Amino acid sequence: MKAARLHTFGAEFVIEEVPTPVPGPGQVLIRIAGAGACHSDLHIASGETQGIALPHTLGHENAGWVETFGHGAEGQGLEVGDAVVVFGGWGCGHCSFCLGGKEQMCDTFLWGGMGPEGGYAEYLLVPSTRHLLPTGGLDPVLAAPLTDAALTPYAAVKKTLPHLTAGRSAVLIGAGGLGQYGVQFLKLLSPAKVVVVESDPGKRALAQTLGADVAIDPLRENALAEIQEESGKNGAAVVLDFVGVDSTMTLGSAVLGRGGLFVLVGLAGGSVPFSFLGLAPEAMLTSSNWGSRNELAEVLALARSGDLVSTIEQFPLSEINEVFDRLGRGRINGRAVLVP
Amino acid sequence: MKAARLHTFGAEFVIEEVPTPVPGPGQVLIRIAGAGACHSDLHIASGETQGIALPHTLGHENAGWVETFGHGAEGQGLEVGDAVVVFGGWGCGHCSFCLGGKEQMCDTFLWGGMGPEGGYAEYLLVPSTRHLLPTGGLDPVLAAPLTDAALTPYAAVKKTLPHLTAGRSAVLIGAGGLGQYGVQFLKLLSPAKVVVVESDPGKRALAQTLGADVAIDPLRENALAEIQEESGKNGAAVVLDFVGVDSTMTLGSAVLGRGGLFVLVGLAGGSVPFSFLGLAPEAMLTSSNWGSRNELAEVLALARSGDLVSTIEQFPLSEINEVFDRLGRGRINGRAVLVP
Amino acid sequence: MKAARLHTFGAEFVIEEVPTPVPGPGQVLIRIAGAGACHSDLHIASGETQGIALPHTLGHENAGWVETFGHGAEGQGLEVGDAVVVFGGWGCGHCSFCLGGKEQMCDTFLWGGMGPEGGYAEYLLVPSTRHLLPTGGLDPVLAAPLTDAALTPYAAVKKTLPHLTAGRSAVLIGAGGLGQYGVQFLKLLSPAKVVVVESDPGKRALAQTLGADVAIDPLRENALAEIQEESGKNGAAVVLDFVGVDSTMTLGSAVLGRGGLFVLVGLAGGSVPFSFLGLAPEAMLTSSNWGSRNELAEVLALARSGDLVSTIEQFPLSEINEVFDRLGRGRINGRAVLVP
Amino acid sequence: MKAARLHTFGAEFVIEEVPTPVPGPGQVLIRIAGAGACHSDLHIASGETQGIALPHTLGHENAGWVETFGHGAEGQGLEVGDAVVVFGGWGCGHCSFCLGGKEQMCDTFLWGGMGPEGGYAEYLLVPSTRHLLPTGGLDPVLAAPLTDAALTPYAAVKKTLPHLTAGRSAVLIGAGGLGQYGVQFLKLLSPAKVVVVESDPGKRALAQTLGADVAIDPLRENALAEIQEESGKNGAAVVLDFVGVDSTMTLGSAVLGRGGLFVLVGLAGGSVPFSFLGLAPEAMLTSSNWGSRNELAEVLALARSGDLVSTIEQFPLSEINEVFDRLGRGRINGRAVLVP
Repeated sequence: MKAARLHTFGAEFVIEEVPTPVPGPGQVLIRIAGAGACHSDLHIASGETQGIALPHTLGHENAGWVETFGHGAEGQGLEVGDAVVVFGGWGCGHCSFCLGGKEQMCDTFLWGGMGPEGGYAEYLLVPSTRHLLPTGGLDPVLAAPLTDAALTPYAAVKKTLPHLTAGRSAVLIGAGGLGQYGVQFLKLLSPAKVVVVESDPGKRALAQTLGADVAIDPLRENALAEIQEESGKNGAAVVLDFVGVDSTMTLGSAVLGRGGLFVLVGLAGGSVPFSFLGLAPEAMLTSSNWGSRNELAEVLALARSGDLVSTIEQFPLSEINEVFDRLGRGRINGRAVLVP
Repeated sequence: MKAARLHTFGAEFVIEEVPTPVPGPGQVLIRIAGAGACHSDLHIASGETQGIALPHTLGHENAGWVETFGHGAEGQGLEVGDAVVVFGGWGCGHCSFCLGGKEQMCDTFLWGGMGPEGGYAEYLLVPSTRHLLPTGGLDPVLAAPLTDAALTPYAAVKKTLPHLTAGRSAVLIGAGGLGQYGVQFLKLLSPAKVVVVESDPGKRALAQTLGADVAIDPLRENALAEIQEESGKNGAAVVLDFVGVDSTMTLGSAVLGRGGLFVLVGLAGGSVPFSFLGLAPEAMLTSSNWGSRNELAEVLALARSGDLVSTIEQFPLSEINEVFDRLGRGRINGRAVLVP
Repeated sequence: MKAARLHTFGAEFVIEEVPTPVPGPGQVLIRIAGAGACHSDLHIASGETQGIALPHTLGHENAGWVETFGHGAEGQGLEVGDAVVVFGGWGCGHCSFCLGGKEQMCDTFLWGGMGPEGGYAEYLLVPSTRHLLPTGGLDPVLAAPLTDAALTPYAAVKKTLPHLTAGRSAVLIGAGGLGQYGVQFLKLLSPAKVVVVESDPGKRALAQTLGADVAIDPLRENALAEIQEESGKNGAAVVLDFVGVDSTMTLGSAVLGRGGLFVLVGLAGGSVPFSFLGLAPEAMLTSSNWGSRNELAEVLALARSGDLVSTIEQFPLSEINEVFDRLGRGRINGRAVLVP
Repeated sequence: MKAARLHTFGAEFVIEEVPTPVPGPGQVLIRIAGAGACHSDLHIASGETQGIALPHTLGHENAGWVETFGHGAEGQGLEVGDAVVVFGGWGCGHCSFCLGGKEQMCDTFLWGGMGPEGGYAEYLLVPSTRHLLPTGGLDPVLAAPLTDAALTPYAAVKKTLPHLTAGRSAVLIGAGGLGQYGVQFLKLLSPAKVVVVESDPGKRALAQTLGADVAIDPLRENALAEIQEESGKNGAAVVLDFVGVDSTMTLGSAVLGRGGLFVLVGLAGGSVPFSFLGLAPEAMLTSSNWGSRNELAEVLALARSGDLVSTIEQFPLSEINEVFDRLGRGRINGRAVLVP
């Protein structure tokens, strides 16, 4: 089969012929319909992310069709030819996280496409049927980004729901690929006022189209005062930071109200000090890390209901190097999907 | 002042002159703008509800303006003339329910208008400023029904939210005065599919206007099968019964899925057997009883945001007997508010 | 291998030679160390429980040693010879319950030993390594009953913990095999007062030894008033009914306080009416159904810490008919374990 | 009445005669039995804490007897002469925190003894009966420290309970006055292993007497590795830091496991960076701030049950300067109570 493989950190992907995998006991081979190009792959390709052995096929946002089953994988609710999305949080399958419904938290690093070979290829080997969900009528090309670009903000927003009562506000920082989904999930799942903080005017406009109650440019004079004003007299009940640099984290913790929850999603490497008096009383800081298999099923249900708007551009897999170049320069609107 | 008083169970209200109350220490006198006519008052007026001494002024859905403060009640965030709604769940103020934010669960029966004198009058004596919330710009006549007709379904719906993930369904039985708010709260607060069960065609149509995904006539042939079909393969995650007769409770518990939650709101006196094998595994049955002060504040916030549709008819207090006659015959659309 | 098989409902088990199972892909063969004799097997053996095809080997409380792995089951944290307990809630492995950490709630009826062949035999075929937990030094004969007799009350008690604050009480009805564990879990996991209701004097004494604050005979005059007195002025926060006949359910719902939780565990087939005014306000009725894999791991941790007292009698598998005869007549103290 | 008053920051308290307060509407005068000497008063007396106007009477851990009621305060469950503890989290009484059962989180700074006059005096003016709880037979001198020294760790421990399943561990840093209660609450309320980190050998020994499973000196070589070893393979589920300097917060966040909860209680002014990769995935950092009225009631219930060990030294109020001198030098074992 054809695969886009990384041979050297910092170099381009090479489209080459590799053996098509053969599924072992319990495994499933998927024919890829589309694989989303995720920002985090830029960090892997550049060599910043540790623990990846080369050569390697990246790609962890995958959807396609069941091609063949390994022994013992048949008869578990799937048939050859079924359109499926691939849940990417592949854990060990027997620790307390895996068996408690949070396989993405397993400390065995086996995440689909970030350790094992990924989906920038014609076929993908999936270790178990438990990672496959029927698309239920969704086009698998369009469904691929739901497995990370939508699932990650969904899981982050779900953590905040107990805080988001009517009359309170959520400040969402960064309305890019994930943040756009975040705005929609906040409006679909909570009665809170959504205050978006985003420096790009086009993304601010899009956020308001997607339901944001207000969108503020953080570079504007008095931006902090304006965000605080919009957050209400008790401060923001929730801050979701989809950027995660020092300045967004500082801003986010400054607007957080008493007992409020700050959820860090952005992987830009920033930090903010945690102390007793430097934050509102009983404020909480945490991060959110992909999402669970059941949360992915919920995202699919929202997508099928038509309530979720996705902005997707399709490219042939052969253009992977151009796509990652544009991605690195911020020139992708929404999510790019690579189609083999 | 004028008050509409009940002298004999089963007889008409008498509009008569009574002394205007004088607020004692900590108390507040409210000039009534409007008082909602609640179905439960029919049960009190007829003598069915126990524990009410006559003569008595009913009326527990109240809003108006601050008229005078008793000693020590000033300076707690309110001024004379402020438009306020009156939270009606008046508890003892010092038990664990009252001090845990659930004063409506206090076992000292002091609920505003159901024990002490109520709001079918020109003035209402309120025992503490803690029961008053500024309307925040809402017309107090229109805000009065929010204190019960909206608050009660709001509190019921909040109990169900952890069960209502995307792709699951809530079955709501009875789309009358409270159920109409219930439909809206389900759509505003959750991503669940809302399946309304209602025998009146006009109320079914209204429920769909308010956001119900489907509305089913329970008297139709195969109604149960249709409700089960619409509830999805795992059964209803939630059932909210705003009627509460044997047949609705039987229907509700039949469509409830594994681990589902049945919340009884309707006071019609029905019952259903609870057993291990007669319900889906780990199904839960509970009732919901008015709501809390903070939940009322949340309802007000939703009303101010414009997201909440109320159907209200105003009547002069002098027409109270005609209003209750119509109410008893099911001839009020939405909620009737009595204006002194 | 030898197995104790049921050929006719209502007849005795027959010890006979059957083929030793060979594990298929992903499966594991366990050499049984001990299998607990559970009351629910009496209902199956008599023919009361539906859906069991004969001949059949019962036994769902199993522990032993890994004998052989099927293809693909090796290398998942277990080695041949490891001492393991067998989690018995075998679900489909790919529904939302299974993948949400509640495999025992799966609606595909595959529970170990109640559908597939069980552990009253020399060997047991287990469909996946995910059902096996290392005993961590516990004797597998003594650990076998932890998989149901301890796990079931553990999961029931965990549901009640948010209700059990200091100064409140839990009423536990029935201090038999499961109830004795229930008393211990309530004391280990909560600060609540534990009020045991049990008609057998020996079991009342044992319950007090295990930590019950008081043990009351329900047949005593004024028993109800005494239970209410011991439950405190707000009523019982929790009732756990390990019997489940009409009279225990009626008693339990009568002593339940406002917002209290009644958890039914006993499978005796009783029922009690649920209604608005027939219970304390916002009281909740539910049932509890075995427990999860992670909850079993927690039970094992408690057993290893030495905090959990088990009363176990061992019998050779060849005495299975005598054991079930004694079990039916209430003549087993604690739990009987059959050793092949 | 006699009161120990602070006239100048950094100077000694002056015992002097001041007018005995007269309770206004809704208020209550308490005759002080004992007032706990809290470490935070050292910070106020030195001038470090802002917002205190001099002269001032400190003392926020108070218990005594009802002396007189202001108008409207009678008849709310208390009688003159009743022994009571004083809940110190005095809020505005009408915000969402106050009416949601978390008055200690109110942003109106009125905390008993830290804004209004406190209890280092013969009498204390309390603004409402809702702040008083009957001791229920406890000696009010011994009960005084329960209102802060016990309540604060109790509320902190309650936040951690959902994380503390059997087989997991809680690391508690600092076994001083509050930490000693923290150890006890962890053992009374959870099945977790308690790992104490404390440099003082006497306090380590006391912690083990009170139930700690292990107590480690953080200054010992390999202390961090030892704490990690004792915390188990998934890391600490919970860290409670009763010290709160940079080094304890750094240590605490280093031993925290995936999804773990770090609760900061100590007010020593330390901080630690929060970032995505600098902590275990989805770890959560928060602080805990005194406790609620209902949590105080729960602490009293535990004290009455005899399950809670308090180490208390009594001193006459006239020795207040000696007591604070010893407190500042770490020479008080447990809690000092000043008796007027």
